Amino acid sequence: MKKKNLIYGQSGGVTSVINASAYGAIVAALEEAEIENVYAGINGINGVLEEKLIDLTKETKDEIEKIPYTPGAIFGSCRKKLKTEEDFRRLFEVFEAHNIGYFLYNGGNDSMETVHRIALKAREYGYPLKAIGIPKTVDNDLMHTDHCPGYGSAAKYTAISILEATKDLIAMHGDSTQVFIMESMGRYAGWLAASAALAGLNGGTAPQIILLPEVPFDEEKFLSKVEETIVRDGYCSVVVAEALKDSSGNYISTEAYKDAFGNVQLGKIGIYIQKIVRQKLGRKVHTALPDYLQRSSRHIASLTDWREAIEVGAAAVKYAVKDGLSDVMVSIVRDNDYPYLKHYSPVELNGVASAVKYLPEEFIAENGFGVTEKFIEYARPLINGEAPVIYLRGIPVYAKLKRVFVEKKLKG
Amino acid sequence: MKKKNLIYGQSGGVTSVINASAYGAIVAALEEAEIENVYAGINGINGVLEEKLIDLTKETKDEIEKIPYTPGAIFGSCRKKLKTEEDFRRLFEVFEAHNIGYFLYNGGNDSMETVHRIALKAREYGYPLKAIGIPKTVDNDLMHTDHCPGYGSAAKYTAISILEATKDLIAMHGDSTQVFIMESMGRYAGWLAASAALAGLNGGTAPQIILLPEVPFDEEKFLSKVEETIVRDGYCSVVVAEALKDSSGNYISTEAYKDAFGNVQLGKIGIYIQKIVRQKLGRKVHTALPDYLQRSSRHIASLTDWREAIEVGAAAVKYAVKDGLSDVMVSIVRDNDYPYLKHYSPVELNGVASAVKYLPEEFIAENGFGVTEKFIEYARPLINGEAPVIYLRGIPVYAKLKRVFVEKKLKG
Repeated sequence: MKKKNLIYGQSGGVTSVINASAYGAIVAALEEAEIENVYAGINGINGVLEEKLIDLTKETKDEIEKIPYTPGAIFGSCRKKLKTEEDFRRLFEVFEAHNIGYFLYNGGNDSMETVHRIALKAREYGYPLKAIGIPKTVDNDLMHTDHCPGYGSAAKYTAISILEATKDLIAMHGDSTQVFIMESMGRYAGWLAASAALAGLNGGTAPQIILLPEVPFDEEKFLSKVEETIVRDGYCSVVVAEALKDSSGNYISTEAYKDAFGNVQLGKIGIYIQKIVRQKLGRKVHTALPDYLQRSSRHIASLTDWREAIEVGAAAVKYAVKDGLSDVMVSIVRDNDYPYLKHYSPVELNGVASAVKYLPEEFIAENGFGVTEKFIEYARPLINGEAPVIYLRGIPVYAKLKRVFVEKKLKG
Repeated sequence: MKKKNLIYGQSGGVTSVINASAYGAIVAALEEAEIENVYAGINGINGVLEEKLIDLTKETKDEIEKIPYTPGAIFGSCRKKLKTEEDFRRLFEVFEAHNIGYFLYNGGNDSMETVHRIALKAREYGYPLKAIGIPKTVDNDLMHTDHCPGYGSAAKYTAISILEATKDLIAMHGDSTQVFIMESMGRYAGWLAASAALAGLNGGTAPQIILLPEVPFDEEKFLSKVEETIVRDGYCSVVVAEALKDSSGNYISTEAYKDAFGNVQLGKIGIYIQKIVRQKLGRKVHTALPDYLQRSSRHIASLTDWREAIEVGAAAVKYAVKDGLSDVMVSIVRDNDYPYLKHYSPVELNGVASAVKYLPEEFIAENGFGVTEKFIEYARPLINGEAPVIYLRGIPVYAKLKRVFVEKKLKG
């Protein structure tokens, strides 16, 4: 049997460890006797459609070893949705032209939908393809996995950032700033905002208020809670999820427009919350919007998350080649909370694609302004340990790939 | 001769290493045979006025050793300005009641003004006081010192954050975000915004545009530069100083009101820049406002900065006790750029207080959108090395002081 080639691609918003998954997948594929060549699509599926594939067998081992130390998406990401029959036809033309037998796609909900559709089309077209989804999202909102690679690191950044900023607030509150607000990414689910509570793990000051998208925002109740907190503690530290909604289900965020996947782009809710606290309570407020910093902060990635990100990449190759699976995603199954134990398992993409896992009720504090101990137990192992960083001149060192392109075989 | 007591206080906006200076000063003072007791004023000068002093001889050595690992201002900071004769009378009453012979004050421009005034009043009142300023500011805008403790760490945070976020932007720009904007603190001077250029030290992608407060903002020129950059590179990463001004010298920032020192509170300029890029160029933009995160990020503090912060604290004790100086600030004198060498030296507070050191012309790129190689040579040693962090459960561990208050001896 003629050996087949593999394409790995990255899609959706990046995480600080998506390249760790790239590394896991690439190294496993390069070691795999069944695989001839290992390619990466530039900007995910867009690169495949445009035949922009780079040949990873041409990279030096030293640079490949630096890939998991590099934030961003080293091969470029995309927000492309495959919609037309023409798109699919073109995709499989490229697959055929380059003898592709394995397609690994690394992304979140929308990207899992893409892999699922490709797997279905392969069946329809009778094309022998093993298509596997590698999970990745700081939002932690994928179904049928205990958690998502990328979440632990963004959670660690979130918790440490609010811990440090709250120390600043505590220092200043005597005669200056009394309220600090930090906006959190996380899309429609509250997982990432909730992770701010991990700031309290060593007895430190966690934010006194977390505004979750799962809890309808009640301005009056919120302002009372802020005032009550200032009276009690002298200051109030707040984390607010970007997708905060009112009781009618409308986003409170001041900027809302749709991206290529039809998702609303959220953000700037922190500015809105600052305005009402300042205007209605007359308190001095500082507000941080970390934005991309929250999902790209490789310098403070979780060791647990980083290792798992590498491992899910490697597991995807095993599922495709050794187990002959397709149309599945690598999921993380938790075996024990503490000490933390887990294993990996394939789950059907059908149940994962485009669904959203919200923060369950048992993780939300009764008063709606925080999380439960159960959430802390769930989240704490995920931020454990510090992923190594290579520093030179005080600045992290990243992989610099040669990016040797595979010769195009098709027109257009 | 009866031994005297020492008061250490913190003032102004915090840095991630102001507690390293506290540690240096406290440990040096505790070791000093000439000093009886070592006190800290809670919330700087406010605590002294209110006789809220804590006795550091009552803390355990283990907790004192954790002080330099702790962000914020461990004794609380303040924005108090001594204005009235009544304030000064009260202050010296407290000094007298508690047998204070040494006063160390850790802060920026305004705080150095406070120390200077106290030193002058001591002379006027004939009170034997050694008053020493310990520099601290992420703004790096103090005169007569090569740089300020706190700057190197905030600069390291700024450079690493923009480096990581630009990796994110590069990953996304294919069919999504093309412009990333990060706002920088730094008050009226461009030192901190300029430090973003250090992201390029290892050949990585530094922001293509840095908007400095020393260069009047020309909207048309800026937008052309952004567009030209996107056409050339596909994306554009921008760092903007909070105090950006137009050609008439007006702040462009959308929120401007004065704090207790009469300083304008700046911020949200990033939102303004985002708006014009989006509206006038029609590009998809993401914006980060790190705010307090920029000056509190102890988890990524510079080792060079951290050590210097400790050392300036210790030097202050030496100046006061061994050298019998007063009305001076500890300054850092650079002896060599590379390899970096420096020593400490006392400078008269008169020349430091309330003055501002701006980014000199030789550090600003000719096109006004960045810095020169000379600036890089100046700034690079300051971010070198990574200050140690104690992690437990994935979260930093900070000092927890007992805070044993000194018995009050005065009324009110």
